[in-house]
Amino acid sequence: MHIFITNDDGYTSKGLQALIQMARPFGEITVVAPQYPQSAMSSAVSIGKMLRMVPVSSPDGSFEEGIKRYYCSGTPVDCVKMALNVLFSGKKPDLLLSGINHGFNGSSAVLYSGTLGATQEGALNGIPSLAFSLKDHSPNADFNASIYYGTKIIEEFIKHPPVEYSFINVNIPQGSIHEINGIRLSRFGMGAWIKEIESRTDPYGHPYYWMVGEYENLEPGDLECDHNLLDKNYVTIVPHKIDNTNYPELERLKVVWKDLTRDDNGI
Amino acid sequence: MHIFITNDDGYTSKGLQALIQMARPFGEITVVAPQYPQSAMSSAVSIGKMLRMVPVSSPDGSFEEGIKRYYCSGTPVDCVKMALNVLFSGKKPDLLLSGINHGFNGSSAVLYSGTLGATQEGALNGIPSLAFSLKDHSPNADFNASIYYGTKIIEEFIKHPPVEYSFINVNIPQGSIHEINGIRLSRFGMGAWIKEIESRTDPYGHPYYWMVGEYENLEPGDLECDHNLLDKNYVTIVPHKIDNTNYPELERLKVVWKDLTRDDNGI
Repeated sequence: MHIFITNDDGYTSKGLQALIQMARPFGEITVVAPQYPQSAMSSAVSIGKMLRMVPVSSPDGSFEEGIKRYYCSGTPVDCVKMALNVLFSGKKPDLLLSGINHGFNGSSAVLYSGTLGATQEGALNGIPSLAFSLKDHSPNADFNASIYYGTKIIEEFIKHPPVEYSFINVNIPQGSIHEINGIRLSRFGMGAWIKEIESRTDPYGHPYYWMVGEYENLEPGDLECDHNLLDKNYVTIVPHKIDNTNYPELERLKVVWKDLTRDDNGI
Repeated sequence: MHIFITNDDGYTSKGLQALIQMARPFGEITVVAPQYPQSAMSSAVSIGKMLRMVPVSSPDGSFEEGIKRYYCSGTPVDCVKMALNVLFSGKKPDLLLSGINHGFNGSSAVLYSGTLGATQEGALNGIPSLAFSLKDHSPNADFNASIYYGTKIIEEFIKHPPVEYSFINVNIPQGSIHEINGIRLSRFGMGAWIKEIESRTDPYGHPYYWMVGEYENLEPGDLECDHNLLDKNYVTIVPHKIDNTNYPELERLKVVWKDLTRDDNGI
């Protein structure tokens, strides 16, 4: 089995090393991870910007048997496209893993997450794809429980892969293996960030701004939602999909907007 | 009615001026558009990067009655967040319009599109949101048909807005008003880019790469799909949604992955 690994925190991050350690028993590994942190880059792609891709050692300076590592100067989705076009050219990896992200990627964080952008790109290319995120932003976060539960999930994922154009989002709560209550399959829970901008004034009297924000849970208490289960110390698994057409809304609009589609060629 | 307008091609683009012209009859306008082109930035957000927002005139140097314009140094989603937090602070706009994009944003282009990222952000914040894209990359593209059909769509959209957490993606084919066959409500059509990377060698012997690519239509001929209808010279409207949980897959995985969720607290 040939496994492709990427992330959004960059090629030296601790979470990436944890994911490589987790994946190693399952096969041969190729890593293309961002040269610099690319958090919140969503599915951004570098159009019109030159890209570099450079072979690197592991952070301890070694070159390990069965593991090839590269950094890429672009976004997480750039990393996937570079790997598929330049390194795998034609033959696809059997599995794409993204993460382990330093920080929560449930609820509407999936809209902004580069970790998830990479798995979406994998699924679009027909590769079974999994994202892992630990609810701990610290650069020295403890990934032991992530590796324990992540290994179980990869085993099940390989035995029973998801349907085409679907990708899997795993979030792990903080804490030790024994502090975590178990694993739950769940749906996206609605939430959004508020009070997101902090305004300051520069030494020349001009305003500038920093992105900050508070998370507002818009479906508190519902235990079908990923964010609420994570708060209850469960590992959450959400299957996402490429096509986000709102089908019930499409059928409703075909009726209520029928005048719009009536006058074909009748102008 | 207070209308918020943004785009991803930047505050001086011709498509933005066309959208402002199209929206002007419907109400008061506030524009926050990127300082520089931000194509393919998806829902990327500038975390850890300082942002600027500066009032500007229209490209002809005038300040028009009922229209306020700003550029923002960040991404399209940054523009939305800046507007909502700094300019509207508390009171939301009644309508968000994004575009008119210079280029096709149907099929899987929606995954990468900054134009769509901005409307997704609007919908997440409870604002009725519409994206417009013309299938013509030229900086001097002809937006007359876009304005004609776009005006009809905005009128219908205001009369019958979409449901909560849904946003509308409009694509307009090239050509004059009379060359276009009409308007069709449709779904996301599957397709992906292939052969995406062009490799070169720099004067020092090192490789570098450019993003290029050919679009591969993965559902050719299906006239429920946006990309095929656009090829047949129809304006297409796709309702998208925030939550892209794959619900049928969630139910399937609850059965096939049942062993994963069995051993709660039983470690």
